[in-house]
Amino acid sequence: MAKKVKQSKQKKEEPIILVTNDDSIGAPGIKALVEAVMDLGRIVVVAPDKPQSGMGHAITIGHPLRLQKVAFIDGVEAYTCNGTPVDCVKLAVDKILHRKPDICLSGINHGANHSINVIYSGTMSAAMEAAIESIPSAGFSLLDYSMEADFTAAKIYVRKITEQLLKRKLPKHLLFNVNIPALDAGLIKGIKVCRQAYAKYEEDFIERTDPHGRKYYWLTGDFLNFDKGKDTDVWALNNHYVSLVPVTFDLTDYALKKELETNWDL
Amino acid sequence: MAKKVKQSKQKKEEPIILVTNDDSIGAPGIKALVEAVMDLGRIVVVAPDKPQSGMGHAITIGHPLRLQKVAFIDGVEAYTCNGTPVDCVKLAVDKILHRKPDICLSGINHGANHSINVIYSGTMSAAMEAAIESIPSAGFSLLDYSMEADFTAAKIYVRKITEQLLKRKLPKHLLFNVNIPALDAGLIKGIKVCRQAYAKYEEDFIERTDPHGRKYYWLTGDFLNFDKGKDTDVWALNNHYVSLVPVTFDLTDYALKKELETNWDL
Repeated sequence: MAKKVKQSKQKKEEPIILVTNDDSIGAPGIKALVEAVMDLGRIVVVAPDKPQSGMGHAITIGHPLRLQKVAFIDGVEAYTCNGTPVDCVKLAVDKILHRKPDICLSGINHGANHSINVIYSGTMSAAMEAAIESIPSAGFSLLDYSMEADFTAAKIYVRKITEQLLKRKLPKHLLFNVNIPALDAGLIKGIKVCRQAYAKYEEDFIERTDPHGRKYYWLTGDFLNFDKGKDTDVWALNNHYVSLVPVTFDLTDYALKKELETNWDL
Repeated sequence: MAKKVKQSKQKKEEPIILVTNDDSIGAPGIKALVEAVMDLGRIVVVAPDKPQSGMGHAITIGHPLRLQKVAFIDGVEAYTCNGTPVDCVKLAVDKILHRKPDICLSGINHGANHSINVIYSGTMSAAMEAAIESIPSAGFSLLDYSMEADFTAAKIYVRKITEQLLKRKLPKHLLFNVNIPALDAGLIKGIKVCRQAYAKYEEDFIERTDPHGRKYYWLTGDFLNFDKGKDTDVWALNNHYVSLVPVTFDLTDYALKKELETNWDL
């Protein structure tokens, strides 16, 4: 994973930036993302035609996928897909671009994707799919679930990070998980490179009984941070920083691997 | 993540083994898993009521969940759930067991979950959810997609690994991804502790046109191994070993984190 990918900048071509999300093409967040970077390259948007939050790394095998060219911001090529965020990335590369884009940006998600949420998030799964396909990639999330969220500060950081991605030689599997606090730009202290916090939802299912006497359950819960570290994304966000976690899709636990090889009899 | 969890064995109580899968309660694989370990503790099965392959780490937020007590193997407590594999684990802990089980076993999956498939797999996501909840956990997969697959050899290795899990002090977030070759037991060379291979599907969407002239696409592809290492799960399976990859849900890329802190200006 240490190999470098040639940037098209070196060939003096305009870089291709693939943009996707999980909140669907209609979400204000994806529009904000494109507005932040649209003069930095050729933007191609391929996004779900309906919200796909919490889909994780789901893919569509059982039914056919469709692409639809749609109107978006003037001058920006955009398509919707009836599948998951991961499907969008796969189809974009194979059927629209017919080549790998230089980078892929996913978001801006309406709501946090820090800590353990990286695993459940459709936004991050789309970005991860790109990274698996050797396309350096970043997912962006704003800590505001509202559809009326203010993306002003988020756009500043999306642009700053995208500029870095375009000017550097990047590891081909590079993947960033970027979360932005819901604060005015002047109150944000900058970007902090972090590790993923061990923070998660503590489930508490609400039990109800239907009119026929059968029980059913609604998933709810409180978000709790069990991680006291000051190098985590949750700490950074609580302290008014933008958190940037470099993410890998090699899930091997190398420390445990060594322990197994040394002390277990398998 | 180095803390140890107290095994109930030390208290001379029978250990509780939570069993789930993604192929649904009706799949032969989950029956094989329970048969392999049912004398090792109190088995509680909570599995999806319909197949959930490729669901990744999806959770159910938008509609209510139901549990149904069902007949299974004689003497084994079993429930179905109308949600995803991850929902099954969450509900089992919160609404059926009212405590954490000693370990969680997921599978036996009909089909491989080695290399990058760990990310897409519902079987592994259920096991990962348990590990996040501090329940040591293992996912098992047999390299045979058929519903008529022969689980004889797989059962031997499921039991061997489960015995190890029950007799040792375990890291509370322990998670194993175990894949078993579709071979007679006598031809399998043993268990190999491995890292996750960089091997993945190369997509090739089949394009068709519907009777109304609109294009649609079917996801297909070839599985390719780009990883030449002899320490990977794909290598082990190709060489007739059972592969065991210890898995972490901390997705931080620590090497890239260091590089960013040293050489990037963010």
